Amino acid sequence: MRVLVLGGNGFIGSHLVDALVARGDEIDVVGRATNLYNVFLTQSQKVQYHQTNISNIQFLTPLLERADVIFHLVSTTIPATSNQNPVADIQDNLVATVQILEVLRHLPKKRLIYISSGGTVYGTPQHIPVSESHPLDPKNSYGIVKVAIEKYLHMYADLYDVSSVVLRLANPYGPRQMKIGVQGFIATVLMSELQNKPITIWGDGKVIRDYIYIDDVVCLLQRVAERSEIGTFNVGSGEGYSLLNILETANEITQKDIQVNYLPSRNFDIPEIVLDIHHVCKTFDWQPEISLTTGMTMHWQWLQHLNHVMGNRS
Amino acid sequence: MRVLVLGGNGFIGSHLVDALVARGDEIDVVGRATNLYNVFLTQSQKVQYHQTNISNIQFLTPLLERADVIFHLVSTTIPATSNQNPVADIQDNLVATVQILEVLRHLPKKRLIYISSGGTVYGTPQHIPVSESHPLDPKNSYGIVKVAIEKYLHMYADLYDVSSVVLRLANPYGPRQMKIGVQGFIATVLMSELQNKPITIWGDGKVIRDYIYIDDVVCLLQRVAERSEIGTFNVGSGEGYSLLNILETANEITQKDIQVNYLPSRNFDIPEIVLDIHHVCKTFDWQPEISLTTGMTMHWQWLQHLNHVMGNRS
Repeated sequence: MRVLVLGGNGFIGSHLVDALVARGDEIDVVGRATNLYNVFLTQSQKVQYHQTNISNIQFLTPLLERADVIFHLVSTTIPATSNQNPVADIQDNLVATVQILEVLRHLPKKRLIYISSGGTVYGTPQHIPVSESHPLDPKNSYGIVKVAIEKYLHMYADLYDVSSVVLRLANPYGPRQMKIGVQGFIATVLMSELQNKPITIWGDGKVIRDYIYIDDVVCLLQRVAERSEIGTFNVGSGEGYSLLNILETANEITQKDIQVNYLPSRNFDIPEIVLDIHHVCKTFDWQPEISLTTGMTMHWQWLQHLNHVMGNRS
Repeated sequence: MRVLVLGGNGFIGSHLVDALVARGDEIDVVGRATNLYNVFLTQSQKVQYHQTNISNIQFLTPLLERADVIFHLVSTTIPATSNQNPVADIQDNLVATVQILEVLRHLPKKRLIYISSGGTVYGTPQHIPVSESHPLDPKNSYGIVKVAIEKYLHMYADLYDVSSVVLRLANPYGPRQMKIGVQGFIATVLMSELQNKPITIWGDGKVIRDYIYIDDVVCLLQRVAERSEIGTFNVGSGEGYSLLNILETANEITQKDIQVNYLPSRNFDIPEIVLDIHHVCKTFDWQPEISLTTGMTMHWQWLQHLNHVMGNRS
């Protein structure tokens, strides 16, 4: 199978590429960074890395042509910062994706898998857990762009038979997430524990989110690639944890007691969101296997290992 | 009052500008065409016409700065053709509007009135009539872009206090609509009657739409400009008529019997949509006054008059 992974150099993408390599797939990876996330991948002859952005449609076209399966994992923004430059958000994500759809409508049918956002497309949930039929009411540019992309995906399916699978992903976490304040609360907490730094929480720490371990996500992505079902699916653990729950679990795992700085809550933060994952579980015979404590423990062990290796180098 | 009308040279805009001139407002009109729709307007010292498109944000900025009220009536696409070039649709409408919002967030508060689309933002209605709380599920690029613009308007209201009124307009009709197949079914039917040409209907003619006469729309737009309420409102007659109803009414008014060519229905046509207009009626003490038969008769009389004048000229 020939697979194109747009964003294969990111957190989710790099794990996915590892799994695809292990399976023996031939893989084109498109990413913006100079170096691969996982440097060992460059040694596999099965992976070709292309350093460009997905707006470069001339470059992308032959890669789209030769792929059987296309994973679109790219977002150039994150929810917290997308509002700072919404025009760029629209250009780099929405326009770029519609350009890709315009190419795909003229090609033989591919399997297209798009990662949308379970945490932002619904806005403030009317009920918990949130099923896929819940109204879409995004509150930030990140979510508005994700919803618009989803609608174009549906339109190209209806008009041109360019079918796709939309996965509305909750908050993934696990090894390779290691930047404070960027890629998720669990990574931020564990990195702060590692560095013995205080952590900042906006609000009282009671906001509830749905976290899913990266291996569960990658397992599902492979399953979706192999199967033929299409549609729009929530992907999460189906369980909600507060920031305080995460802190408590982190302190238990690390045997530390992190210092917390509380700041006023931000007006774009949604108080609670947990995804209803029945649809994806049933359709793809999949379910999340890794509990929060197990997942956070593995994430922590990876961070400690990395710290050990880096410490020995310096 | 100083009013900026983006799209003031279009069907709705030109009627609105006429009404604002009559009221004594000072008006900047932005439009793409060389000539004003209503050529008499150029003789009014109260109106300045600026021929540009709304993506030209440098040109637009001083006009935004000096306006008290801003009407945004621009769409560079129509539902039936928007899918042909969705990238241009996104660039010329969504990106252009977000650029305007970026300017407005740094200015003193203005009254911003945006014309959205009652016919496309909801997709296929789950119930009739459709109220504003109905889920948004647009099926074409035109509707996807309108929904994205609405969401950005809400976001700029929440984050930066750039409040706005969104009017989800049904199918407006009346004098100055005179192109076949572009600006609405009533204009197409009446022009075909005038020219004794056959008309094309996709499907069986039973699709139901909500039509509103232009004078009712303009009356509401003025009312909204004067008041302080904000929010999102359906604007239509609240009554549904099938294409066959329109044909029958047109034949009665014109005393003709138009020939109809039936073609297979199009997959993007929604079978029935009628708007629930209670919210706008109550909020702005407004209601549509002109019945379908009265409105179509006035539209027909205008077409006949125009035909007479043009005929005498040639």
